[in-house]
Parts: sequence; structure tokens; C-alpha cells
Amino acid sequence: MFEAAELGRTLDKGAYKEMVPDLRAGLLNLQQDLRDCDFPVILLISGADGAGKSETVNMLHQWMDPRGIDTAAFDEPTDEERERPAFWRYWRALPPKGRVGVLFGSWYSDPIAQRVEGRIDDDVLAVMLKRINTFEKMLVDGGALLIKLWFHLGKEMQVERVRKLRKNPKTKWRIGERDIAALKSYDTFRAVAEQTLRLTSTGEAPWLIIEGYDERHRNATTANHILEVVRKRMEMDPKTLRGATTAWKTPRQGDKTILDFVDLEKRLEKKDYRKELARLQGRLSVLSRAARERKVSCIVVLEGWDAAGKGGIIRRVTRAIDARSYRVITIAAPTDEERAHHYLWRFWRHIPRGGRFTIYDRSWYGRVLVERVEGFAAEDEWIRAYREINEFEEELTDHGIVLVKFWVHIDRDEQLARFKAREETSFKQHKLTEEDWRNREKWDDYAHAVNDMVERTSTEFAPWNLIEGNDKRWARVRALQILCERLEKAL
Amino acid sequence: MFEAAELGRTLDKGAYKEMVPDLRAGLLNLQQDLRDCDFPVILLISGADGAGKSETVNMLHQWMDPRGIDTAAFDEPTDEERERPAFWRYWRALPPKGRVGVLFGSWYSDPIAQRVEGRIDDDVLAVMLKRINTFEKMLVDGGALLIKLWFHLGKEMQVERVRKLRKNPKTKWRIGERDIAALKSYDTFRAVAEQTLRLTSTGEAPWLIIEGYDERHRNATTANHILEVVRKRMEMDPKTLRGATTAWKTPRQGDKTILDFVDLEKRLEKKDYRKELARLQGRLSVLSRAARERKVSCIVVLEGWDAAGKGGIIRRVTRAIDARSYRVITIAAPTDEERAHHYLWRFWRHIPRGGRFTIYDRSWYGRVLVERVEGFAAEDEWIRAYREINEFEEELTDHGIVLVKFWVHIDRDEQLARFKAREETSFKQHKLTEEDWRNREKWDDYAHAVNDMVERTSTEFAPWNLIEGNDKRWARVRALQILCERLEKAL
Repeated sequence: MFEAAELGRTLDKGAYKEMVPDLRAGLLNLQQDLRDCDFPVILLISGADGAGKSETVNMLHQWMDPRGIDTAAFDEPTDEERERPAFWRYWRALPPKGRVGVLFGSWYSDPIAQRVEGRIDDDVLAVMLKRINTFEKMLVDGGALLIKLWFHLGKEMQVERVRKLRKNPKTKWRIGERDIAALKSYDTFRAVAEQTLRLTSTGEAPWLIIEGYDERHRNATTANHILEVVRKRMEMDPKTLRGATTAWKTPRQGDKTILDFVDLEKRLEKKDYRKELARLQGRLSVLSRAARERKVSCIVVLEGWDAAGKGGIIRRVTRAIDARSYRVITIAAPTDEERAHHYLWRFWRHIPRGGRFTIYDRSWYGRVLVERVEGFAAEDEWIRAYREINEFEEELTDHGIVLVKFWVHIDRDEQLARFKAREETSFKQHKLTEEDWRNREKWDDYAHAVNDMVERTSTEFAPWNLIEGNDKRWARVRALQILCERLEKAL
Repeated sequence: MFEAAELGRTLDKGAYKEMVPDLRAGLLNLQQDLRDCDFPVILLISGADGAGKSETVNMLHQWMDPRGIDTAAFDEPTDEERERPAFWRYWRALPPKGRVGVLFGSWYSDPIAQRVEGRIDDDVLAVMLKRINTFEKMLVDGGALLIKLWFHLGKEMQVERVRKLRKNPKTKWRIGERDIAALKSYDTFRAVAEQTLRLTSTGEAPWLIIEGYDERHRNATTANHILEVVRKRMEMDPKTLRGATTAWKTPRQGDKTILDFVDLEKRLEKKDYRKELARLQGRLSVLSRAARERKVSCIVVLEGWDAAGKGGIIRRVTRAIDARSYRVITIAAPTDEERAHHYLWRFWRHIPRGGRFTIYDRSWYGRVLVERVEGFAAEDEWIRAYREINEFEEELTDHGIVLVKFWVHIDRDEQLARFKAREETSFKQHKLTEEDWRNREKWDDYAHAVNDMVERTSTEFAPWNLIEGNDKRWARVRALQILCERLEKAL
């Protein structure tokens, strides 16, 4: 794979000098046009030590307008990063639409380093790379243009380069012990790199290997590639961009949905409710303190019909937890910063630190519920979302986060009764909007969307819990019970 | 001061039970109304250990809708926080307009703890409290409602309480070594607390001392106070809120401004420019590496006329710095998240970590330049901004950040020539907008605004540098020179 990047390609000074003004003007104009585009450019800079990675990033900053570039370098994770799933730090660094994000030492650095140092084997590496593939696919599906550059340097050239850098007092600082060690393990590195590139060169995000020895060749190749790829993306018809999803029409299997099998007769007497509630809240209180101590985080997702009683459940749950340990995130219309990113970005923002609870009042499932039913998301977008959500949730649970998802179910009559009660209580009037009445009209569409959601996103690591909600007392106790059980199992 | 909070006030169960429903309904309605208000409520919860602080926060979460509350607790700062000025972590936690932010262990915890433990003396404490006063004044001036609650507990009651908590296995965990130590130093704590409250009970942000012994009394007092203060604030006429600034009309001292004394004849020959530029960039490169190593951050502010050459200077500066070590922040219209906060919030967001550079292409000075001239900010707002900006910059430099501010000056003829050149170069056309021509009309107003800005914000810790900009070569070399000198002095 790398043979073609060890040919000692160079570009002579004259040709280069002639080229550069056009490349620079081209890149600046490109940036200018990009501002009005509906997608971000994510540029990954990876490769061998000494193959010109940082020089290339510096070159891009010089040739382009540094005001339109967000460059992120990933050293050791900070403690805030360590307490969250591994990809959180990359989500933080993703550029919004219309900008270029240069990710230096991206999500590839860690798997490669771990494999080279023998801390993981090929199988684990393959799993990590698979996760990268799905992550990248998600970014690309979300509209991002992902450009992956690998800077390569043959062994001999690398030896020579390190020698040169060390000789020059101005550059000597750049060579540390790590680099010497890297030189010694060059062959291993090369093999791991080849494997990595092979497994992650996908149709939507292919690698470009750039021979890193000659600065002029490197710069010209990099600039040309960026120009070509971004221009091509700009010229694409948004419609053809839409992933050609195998038309997955929702075949309604009869009129029944999974919700019809929820036993809404379940009830709890006031006396039993009081007793059970106190007992469960006590249990949750102890569990939440233990979770805090052991730095186990918990994410609770609440979905359900309007007026199903989500808020009531949230208050019963939070009552048992120290106010310093949880946050409630209510999902309404996204802010403009959120709109400029992938739809999952706004949820990643709020992933809790170790030992904390985040309670989502509505969640990323909006994509396959309201956005699907109301047509805010295109069909391929919401169909894709099932997979993206499963992957997202797997990442959370793999990190040790306890993820508990509730759908609070009530029937149409119960909803109507509650709407009417709200109309009559001045104090609750604000909770009822025109939209609630409109949503009610589409009950059947929503029911089928819920059915598909449960079918496709109830996983072993993050199962759905359908809460029988016609009786508020039952619903609250049931939700608390499930939450406690899940936490107990995890602790 | 605390005598009045050691009376053993209690509230009997019956009276409390009668009160609670109204208080809860009141708080919920308040929250609802707050959503449409143009200000945030910042609630500080401080006081003695065991006086019911966390219980009160939990009570608020139960009585109010936790979905409208952002609660932040401040333990040990994370490493990301430690690398930035002390107030950065509080800025991060400030609620946007329309929401309630509960700050638990706020900016008061650290000064008080340091004084009690004898790590600082009264003078240093006074300085720290003074800084708090200015910070709070700024928040209040910016429209925030600041409610400061101090929960007090007399010595005997505290001893009793700790004993009780330790006896109960369910609450025993809450008493650590620190609490025992706190008990021992109670008298010192009391004295320091009294001093602190005295020095920080200001007209715009007074303290309310709440006797913490009896839970019912505590809850009722807290809830009533919040209800009263927030309602009062809601009923205030926005106009009367405007700080009654002593009408500070800008007395123009003749037609001349400080800009008329900038020697625009300064020029640099191409040959000298090349030599100097290379030399200075080399120097800056070495300095920036040293800064990175020693974790000294640097903030560069670029202000100047349209077409004065700010972008050119930025590119010459960034060229010398590793792309991983700097970010360029271009200040344009704020996002909606930014608009929902104090005007300085968007600048705090980008304060660099240790050892990094942040370059602001336009900055917080927009407040006293474009916002003043165009009338986007009310007079009292931009007049107040001089002081707020000085305080902000003092905080940065006190933290060891090197702050370098440039005004790049050109004259009207030079600007016209550059505008025309831009019109003719297709490649630069995008850089010229209608607005640029409009701004040009108001040259004199801007010149006087610049004059006042320099007069009022050129401080010892953050002086303004007026750059002679008619000759681009001179300007670039001059800016680099100043930046190098400032860094050299700091390192």
C-alpha cells in the first residue's frame, strides 16, 4: 500500500513557485464559497512522525484564511474528557457548517498507538476501526465532507529526517524520546498503519496517502486534493447526496402496534403508592450516591405522548437525587449553533461527567418520532437514524454509562381527559398548546412511529421500557423501580 | 450581624403545611413567566456547613420545575478550569435569559476558605471581595437578577446537627474530616463570613441571611424571598433599570483625536521589510514555543478601520506559530446562545488554555466602537463598558495571560484607495460590503470613539498600541515587534 508513496517524489522549485499563487487564491476562494454552503469540511491529518503533518497544517493556515479554520490537536485527554465516552472530545471539536475543521491526531491516533505498543491485538483494533467507520459514515451521511490525509515516509527517509532535525538546534526540540522509540518500531507501525488504512478506506471517506518527504510535493498535493474534493462536493446536487436507502416503507402489520399490548389497566392505590414511592426514592437516593462515588454516570431518556406524565416522573426521580448530581435537559427547538452541526451534536454536548445523572425530557428520538411524522426529516434521514442512534447508545453504554429509556404510554381517552383538565386549571394552562391538539390528530402515525422505534432501537444494552401511564401513580412507581434495578445491576 | 439569625426561629407544621401549596404554585408560575423575560436569575447558595444549603437546593428542585433550573456545584476545578482565569468556571455556569441558575458554592467559597485556613490575610481577602463586587455589579448592570442567600447556623446548633447526622447511618456519609475541621474553626469562620458579607452586601446585590436550623422556616423564607424579589424585578420598568449614569457626554476637545497624532508617514522598504519580517517571525516562533512550554497564554486583540490590514497582520503573526497553538476568533454577529448572555460571555468562551494563543479579529471593543456609534448599545451600556472591559482585562492579565491590543490606523484617503483596489480585484471583492461604505461616512464619530476608547482602556496591564497602517509593511513589522517584546517581557 505504501510502496507508491516511497518513490521519492519531488517538485522542483520553479514549477512550485509558479503553482503556489493559484493554489492559494484557489483555497481562499474556496473558503469564501464554503461559508454559504450547508456542510462542514473535516480534514483529518494523520501519518508517520516526521512526514510533515504539522508543517502541512501550518501551510494550510498560511495559504488559507486562518479565520475560517478550526484546528484541534489532541494530546492527552483532559480530565473532563476522560470522564466521558472516547468520542466526546472529537464531537467537541467538529466544525459547524460552512467552516473547515482541521483535526490533527484524530480518532485514528489512539487505536494505532495502542496496537503498535502491543496493548491491544488485531481483533480489538478491528473493532475500534469498525466503530470509526460507523462514526465517519454518520458524519458523511449528515452532510459533512470528510477528507482524510495520510502522510507517509519510508524508513530510510525517516531515519534521515530525524537525524537532520536533531542536528539543527532550531528544530532539535521537536525530537523527543517518543520519536526515537517510534523509529525503532517503524516496521510494526507501518504494518498497523497499512491495516488501519485498508479497513477504513471506505467509499464515503477514502484515504489519500501523500508522500511526505518533499515539502513542495507535499504542499502541492495536499492543496490540489482539497481544492478538487471540496469543489466536487459543492457541485453535487443535494438530491443525489441523499444516501440511496433501500426504500424502506413502513409496512404496517395490521392496525395494531406494540402500544396496544401495554396493559393500561394497571393501577396503584394511594396508600400503596405512598409507601412504594418513599421506599423507591430511598433506594434511588442510596444508589445515586454510590454512583457518584464510583463515577458511574446515568442517562435517563423520557419519551411519551403529550400529557403522559413525563414531568411528574422526572420530579419523582430528581427528588431522590442530590441537586448537584443531576441535570434535566429539555429538548425543544435547536439553537442556531446546534442547527449548524450534526443532529446528534446537541445531545453529545450534555453527556454528563462521571457519577452524574442527565435526564432528557424528550431526546434524540425526536428524529424518528416528530421529525418523521411531521416530515421535518427526509425519509432516508430518519431511517438512517435508527442505526445511528443504536451506535450512539452503544458508545455511551460501552463507556459504562447506565442508559435507561422510557416511553410513557396513555390512551387517547386519557389524553383527552388530561388536556381538558389542563384547560380548566389556570395553573396548568401553559402546559397545553395548539401543537398538542394538532399532534393528537396524528395519533395513529405516531403510534406506528413508536412501534418502529421500539422495534429498531430496543437493544440489549439499551432496552426500551414501556410504562403503563393511564394511572399516574403506577407509572411513577414503575419508572422508579426500573431505574433502581438498572442502577443496581450496574453498580 | 449573625445574631438575628441565631434566634432559633421555627415554623410550626400546621402553618407550614398551609403555606406550601401556595409557595409551590407561586414558584412554578414565576418560572413560567420568567421564560419570556429578558433576564436570568442567578441564585447564590452560600453559608455554614450543615445550615441546609444542599437541602434548600433540593427543595427548590422539587418545588420548581427542574427543567428550568441550571444548577452548578463547584468542587475542585478541573484541569481545563485551572488553566484559565478563576472566574472562567463561573462564566461557564451562568444561566441564559429566562432561566434560573443555582450556583452552589459560588465565587465566595474559595476566598472564605482560604482566609479561614490562614492562606491569605485580610488585605488579600478584601482585594478578592472587591473583585467579586465588580463582577456582580457587571452581571446586574447587564440585566441579571442576583439573589444571594447565606444560610447561617449558630455554633451550638451546628455542633448538635453534626452529632445528629453522624448518629444516623443514612446521613453519616455526609460528615467528613473537613466538616470536623470546620467545626473546630467555627469562630474564625464566623468572623470571616461576617467580614465577607459586610464587604459584599451591595445595593445591587444584597445578602439575605437565613437561619438554617429549622427546615420549615428555612424553606418558607427562601421561597418567599425568591418570589418577592423576582416578581419585583419583573414589574420594574426597563427604563428605570438603566443605571443612572452621570450623563457623560463626550466632550470633544476640539476636532483633533489621538489618531491625528499617529505618524502615518512611517514606511519600510521592501528589502528591509523582508529581512525584518523573517527575523521577527523567527523570534516569535521561538517565543511561542517557550510560552507553550511554560503554559503562558497570549491574547491578541486586533481592532482598526475597515481595510486597515488586520487580516494581513494576523496572517504574518500566525505564520510564526504552530497551528496547534493558536485560534483566530472572528467577531461578527452573535449567535442566539450568545445573545442570551452577558455581552462579555462570548469572549470568555474562547479564553485559551495554558500556553495557547487566541487572536481576536475585532473584539469586546465593539461595544464602545460600532455599538456606540450605531446606537446598538444604550449610552449607559457603552459608558459602563469601559470599566467592565478594564476589569475583564485585569482578570486576564492577573492570571498571567499576555494581552496585546492593536488599533491599526490608516487615514481616509488610504482607506478610499484600498476600497477602490478591492473593487477592482475580483479576488478581494468579497471583502468589501455596503456596510464598509456606510461606516466610512461616520469616520469622525468613529475617530472620537477610538479616542475615548484609548483614553479609557489603555491601562498599565493592557496598553493600546496604535499601529501606523498606511504602509502595510511598516504595520506588520511594527505589530510583530510589539508582540515579541511583550512576550519576551512576560517569559
